[in-house]
Parts: sequence; structure tokens; C-alpha cells
Amino acid sequence: MSMDEIQVQVEPEAEDSPTKVLICVNQSSIKGYPYPSLSCVDAFEWTLKKLVKRSSKHLFKLCFLHVEVPDEDGFDDTDSLYASPDDFKDLKHREKIRGLHLLEIFIRRCHEIGVPCEGWIRKGDPKEAICREVKKIHPDILIVGSRGLGPVQRIFVGTVSEYISKHADCPVLVIKRKVEDTPEDPVDD
Amino acid sequence: MSMDEIQVQVEPEAEDSPTKVLICVNQSSIKGYPYPSLSCVDAFEWTLKKLVKRSSKHLFKLCFLHVEVPDEDGFDDTDSLYASPDDFKDLKHREKIRGLHLLEIFIRRCHEIGVPCEGWIRKGDPKEAICREVKKIHPDILIVGSRGLGPVQRIFVGTVSEYISKHADCPVLVIKRKVEDTPEDPVDD
Repeated sequence: MSMDEIQVQVEPEAEDSPTKVLICVNQSSIKGYPYPSLSCVDAFEWTLKKLVKRSSKHLFKLCFLHVEVPDEDGFDDTDSLYASPDDFKDLKHREKIRGLHLLEIFIRRCHEIGVPCEGWIRKGDPKEAICREVKKIHPDILIVGSRGLGPVQRIFVGTVSEYISKHADCPVLVIKRKVEDTPEDPVDD
Repeated sequence: MSMDEIQVQVEPEAEDSPTKVLICVNQSSIKGYPYPSLSCVDAFEWTLKKLVKRSSKHLFKLCFLHVEVPDEDGFDDTDSLYASPDDFKDLKHREKIRGLHLLEIFIRRCHEIGVPCEGWIRKGDPKEAICREVKKIHPDILIVGSRGLGPVQRIFVGTVSEYISKHADCPVLVIKRKVEDTPEDPVDD
């Protein structure tokens, strides 16, 4: 078999269409409201520095997905009084606002530097919601931050990035949190 | 905490320096000599189409790593006669030539389309050799093809991509083989 027989096919018309990058963002478990997690900030920074560069911004479109996890008991850290059905409605509303504020951080930053973008919110289990979204919007690449947990921690918390790497229907880029960013409890983010 | 407090730092001078992409390439187990595996061809095609586009070729440098696996018994499929020490030397020489021919396919293609590149060969267990190389050359991203095996097949053959995702010291992009490329035995590649 000759070396000339291997041909990499690149359709000319598709080559320079924007690469659709799906970035999953979530809230920090330690840094207050509405701070994004260390690992998703790392993933976003990496994407800007290493993929979406100054001279190739038009070649990418960043899509931000935030998955809202339904809280098991519906309570948060504030000393709220729940006395009427409206109080619970209010709780759900606040959760939604929180997600919007989180997305706003990334969308605002993209607008500042001129990168085409959009963002949206889904509800459910993050692993499954992300894989469902991939099937729906067909990103060219899915970028997820990872806490880079060791095997022992991984057993207890599971990791979204590991599941997604195996199950998402598109190329998956996992970006581990910087070592110097690791909080006291590495399960935090 | 205000939304303005989150700042993504992009050092201006580093922003447009070439992104160093390490792509692992290996031989096909089914397609003859010196054909690259289906999954590494997919990974290479993806990289050209989705990252290294016509107008941003200068923003990337592709590095091709081929890891030669020392054959356990030293025999290959040919009907060679081993009667002298030189016969074995010849065997090692042929193995090296095979690796060079494999690299040449990718290097030649990059030159044709004008993408900066280089390639080299290492010996040993692919998983470990790849992780060692990452520590040495510090790529911005490591791209590996994957056969996308199901859980049962994975148990028996292990997968290099899974190991690397966890252990390599840089962002890892796993690109699964296209479904339509899957050979009769999915363990083949």
C-alpha cells in the first residue's frame, strides 16, 4: 500500500465555518455568589488563550451551558422563612436568577473581547443534561473543566468530566484545574 | 461579590504564540503497511478541520508522536528465517523504518497544506511513553483518537485514551472513531 493512498479529506467549503465550542459552566462551591467554579474558569481561560486567539475570533462560536441541579431539600444557606406557597416559588426564581448571573459573567467577557457566543440553562443531573444537549446542538467540541481528583476522592464524588468523556457524542476536551488553584478540600471547586 | 470581580487573565504577549498540539499516531491493526489507525486518522482530520483552519495555520504547531511497542516475541507476520544475530538487527531496523513511514504520512500532509509540524518516535508502553513526553515537551493540548469501545471490550483491551485522560499533565482531547469506520471487530483499528 502506497503512502499516497492515504488522503485526508477536508471539504473546502466547511473548513472555515465557525467551530462550535460548548463550554459547561457551574457555580463555585466555595467562592460565594455567583462565582463560577475554579475548574470552569480555568477551562474558559484556556479556550481564550489557546483556541480563540485575537486573530481567529471569528472562527469560533462559544456556547455556554449551565445545568441547574434541583436541590434535594430545596433549602439554601439563607435564614428564609417558608410560610406560604409563594415562598417556594420565590426560591425557584432565585435559583434561576443565580444561573443567569453565572452565564452573564461569561457572555459579558466574550462581548468585551468580541467573541461570538450564546448561553443557556438546563435542569437536571449535569452528566445526563450535558450529554442530551450535545445530541441536540452537535458541538464540534465540548470543553469541561475537571477538579483533577485522585482515585480515592473520585470514588466518593464521581466526576462529571469522566462520565462525559465516555458518553458524550462529540470530541471532549478535559481541562484539569491548575494545581495552585486546589482548595484545602480538593473536592471543593 | 460583584460580577466585575471575576477577571479572566490573558497575557497579551502570549495570546498569539502558536498553540502546540501533540497528536499521537499509531499503525492500523487491519489496513496493512504503513497505514495509520482509523482513530488517529480521524483525530488528525478533526484537528485540521476544526482547529487548524486555512486562515489560522500559523497559530498552531502540530507535533506527531509515534510510540513503537516492543514486540513480545520479536516476530512479525512475514515468513522470515532467523538464523544469525544480524537477522534480529534487521528486524529492529524494519520496525524503525515502519514508524518513520507512518510519521512521514502526517508530516507530508502538513507540508502540503502549510502547517508547521514535527514528528518523532519513542519506544515503550504507549500510555507511559505519551505521559512522559507530555512532561518533557509541555504541549498546550494532547489529541488522541479513541476506538470508542463499549464497557465489555474496554475491560479486555484497556484503552490508552482513558489512561491518558486521567494521567497526562495537560489538557487532553479525545476524539472517538466515527461509527461508520468501525471494523467488524471493534477492537481492531
